[in-house]
Amino acid sequence: MTEEKKNGVMDKKVSRRNMLKMTGIGAAGIAIGASGMGGILSTFGKDFVAEDDDSTAKNKVNFYGKNQPGITTPAQSNIYFASLTVLVKTKEELQKLFKDWTPAAVKLMNGEKIAAQTNDMVPPPDTGEAKGMDAQNLTLTFGVGPSLFKKFDFGDKKPAELKNLPHFPKDQIEENYSHGDICIQACADDAQVAFHAIRNLVRIASGRVTMKWSQAGFNAVPMTDGKPGTPRNLFAFKDGTENPRGQADADKVVFAQSSETKSWLVGGSYLIARRIQMHLETWDRTALDEQEATFGRHRDSGAPIGKTGEFDAMEIDRKDEKGELVVPDTSHVFLAKSVKSRLLRRSFSYASGVIDSTGAHDAGLLFISFQKDPKQFIEIQNSLGRMDKMNEYITHRGSAVFACFPGVKKGSFIGEALFSTL
Amino acid sequence: MTEEKKNGVMDKKVSRRNMLKMTGIGAAGIAIGASGMGGILSTFGKDFVAEDDDSTAKNKVNFYGKNQPGITTPAQSNIYFASLTVLVKTKEELQKLFKDWTPAAVKLMNGEKIAAQTNDMVPPPDTGEAKGMDAQNLTLTFGVGPSLFKKFDFGDKKPAELKNLPHFPKDQIEENYSHGDICIQACADDAQVAFHAIRNLVRIASGRVTMKWSQAGFNAVPMTDGKPGTPRNLFAFKDGTENPRGQADADKVVFAQSSETKSWLVGGSYLIARRIQMHLETWDRTALDEQEATFGRHRDSGAPIGKTGEFDAMEIDRKDEKGELVVPDTSHVFLAKSVKSRLLRRSFSYASGVIDSTGAHDAGLLFISFQKDPKQFIEIQNSLGRMDKMNEYITHRGSAVFACFPGVKKGSFIGEALFSTL
Repeated sequence: MTEEKKNGVMDKKVSRRNMLKMTGIGAAGIAIGASGMGGILSTFGKDFVAEDDDSTAKNKVNFYGKNQPGITTPAQSNIYFASLTVLVKTKEELQKLFKDWTPAAVKLMNGEKIAAQTNDMVPPPDTGEAKGMDAQNLTLTFGVGPSLFKKFDFGDKKPAELKNLPHFPKDQIEENYSHGDICIQACADDAQVAFHAIRNLVRIASGRVTMKWSQAGFNAVPMTDGKPGTPRNLFAFKDGTENPRGQADADKVVFAQSSETKSWLVGGSYLIARRIQMHLETWDRTALDEQEATFGRHRDSGAPIGKTGEFDAMEIDRKDEKGELVVPDTSHVFLAKSVKSRLLRRSFSYASGVIDSTGAHDAGLLFISFQKDPKQFIEIQNSLGRMDKMNEYITHRGSAVFACFPGVKKGSFIGEALFSTL
Repeated sequence: MTEEKKNGVMDKKVSRRNMLKMTGIGAAGIAIGASGMGGILSTFGKDFVAEDDDSTAKNKVNFYGKNQPGITTPAQSNIYFASLTVLVKTKEELQKLFKDWTPAAVKLMNGEKIAAQTNDMVPPPDTGEAKGMDAQNLTLTFGVGPSLFKKFDFGDKKPAELKNLPHFPKDQIEENYSHGDICIQACADDAQVAFHAIRNLVRIASGRVTMKWSQAGFNAVPMTDGKPGTPRNLFAFKDGTENPRGQADADKVVFAQSSETKSWLVGGSYLIARRIQMHLETWDRTALDEQEATFGRHRDSGAPIGKTGEFDAMEIDRKDEKGELVVPDTSHVFLAKSVKSRLLRRSFSYASGVIDSTGAHDAGLLFISFQKDPKQFIEIQNSLGRMDKMNEYITHRGSAVFACFPGVKKGSFIGEALFSTL
């Protein structure tokens, strides 16, 4: 954004809202991708600037890049998340799947149909429910789960850290919202556009994959003075305030670097998904001061307890005049900040009807975090442990981990390095 | 819209998108409500123009009016629909419920919080997850179901036509997506804002109602040359092309007039909800010409078969040079148009995960129609009967009918006339 302003250039393909959203991490990346400007190459290698796909679509995020889209991309208002079971038996067939998905993903992210109808006597190549919509900032993010490496022998390409998460205190994990061989995360500013993307990608893979589970989610992105704020979860607290900002920070926290992982995953990231039921009725009977003590932040401002600004430093050791901790040591944020690990939160709320037996909302958080190693999440979750006051109000019911590939270069395909013989 | 242009007045409270959407039915109503202009009173009684609540909220629809909002209001991109079971035992308590909901509904539709927090030691009066969002064109529409009149004796105020729908061929109705004593339809251009409204209204009624079922839904509203188009369902066909346009037509089809219903329902409408599962995988294996023969329209344009424009007249008797019907007599639209009844469709798509046993999408249409009498829907549905080609691709799994009150006058409350002793 800063570089944009310096250059005085505003690309027509980038909508006002999209530009406004480009204040967080990933912003420069998208702007470069979309506009192809040459003056600000310092952040990224030239390779990736050259990967622009020349689409003139409105409200589009570039598919190509050093990292996959949908990770540091500013959160859109909708997600459709799908976890797939692979049915094919050979690595060649599996590779073919990703090869087939790649041009489709480019088309979808450009807001274009998968292919033109050539003949009325055949089923439409595109299911069509997104016709007339622009790209709606659709991002598609692909990852592979631990179970895929049990089905296929990738030898020493299997990363040791790619395994199902351990059991955490109070977990009540249900298989039908957990795990999977492949994940596709579709995020967009329109729910139907996100669903359309998943539907068409699954359709292309018909007979080769089946859906294990899927979940729709949403985010309210508040705009203040024309700038997007941090979304609030269904407990009304801001979610993502502490996220890494800027590519350098993301490279430290989110994207695996060359010395840190298997070569096919360099520039990739681990996605952790947790379907967290939130007991809204219990929460709604809780006093505001107790809610704030549970999070360790003020609700309305998002500021650390005792401070006023959302982005004021979270100093968990800070004490009041009586020598007592200002941020309670059983609060969510105190425990999370008690360890060194950080991660990028990119969660969405869900509301999936009513729990029959009680008439309560079946609602909560499709927690999604990205980190270069699952141990970052595990360390934080272990710190929360049984101490976290939040445990009274939530139940983790789904769990999944996926290794998300690095970004795709033009001419390549999703996950190519996993299949290469290097 | 036309009147707006003639007067050359554009109200600041009405966003560009909102204005652009005001091309269909109800448009003038909202514009008048929001702007308080006096020059175009001919369509509505002056009473209702005076009902503007003076909110300065952005992207707001007026709560007050001759008819409830959310009926002829242009379709927003999200719905959260809730069906409630009433727990209170007396009509006085029931009346109190609607009295309590009225100011809350006004606040919600203005994008304001339910009430201010006066004291940190109590639960927040507003659950807060919509904080920072504007009104997002939220509409709230309240109705009462047949079962309410079994719980409470309203004497001859019970309309004879308010009863559960009959069984139709191929119906597979499940109780957990059907019926209810009260419905609240929340529609908005943001999913979290719609959910927030239902959550807070149910919370206000805690102990007095419980949720029977709820369903989230979405619509992609395509914009062409700055104007909103007809949304497409998940079969990619436009849904709502034949809707009544303008208040006069709505008064003919949608809103019960004084000679047509019980006095408390004059200006009201019947809402019919059908949760229709769409077998997307079967549909997606069907040739385009067969899909079009199923609807009786062309997919991309929405035009009647053999024509080119979405709004070209649907002449079901038209024959080709061989003397054969151009629009197949087993098509959905042929059968629907074979009877005189009309209705206002205001449906939303849903995607609720995966059907465990098959890995198929659990997705479809939350069909919602408004009509002055349920017999309009019944006549059309009976005509579709077993003949409708669409039956191969859909299964009706939920069914509900609600009598939606007329609009609320300032100083009154939702449903007041039902409780009056007149």
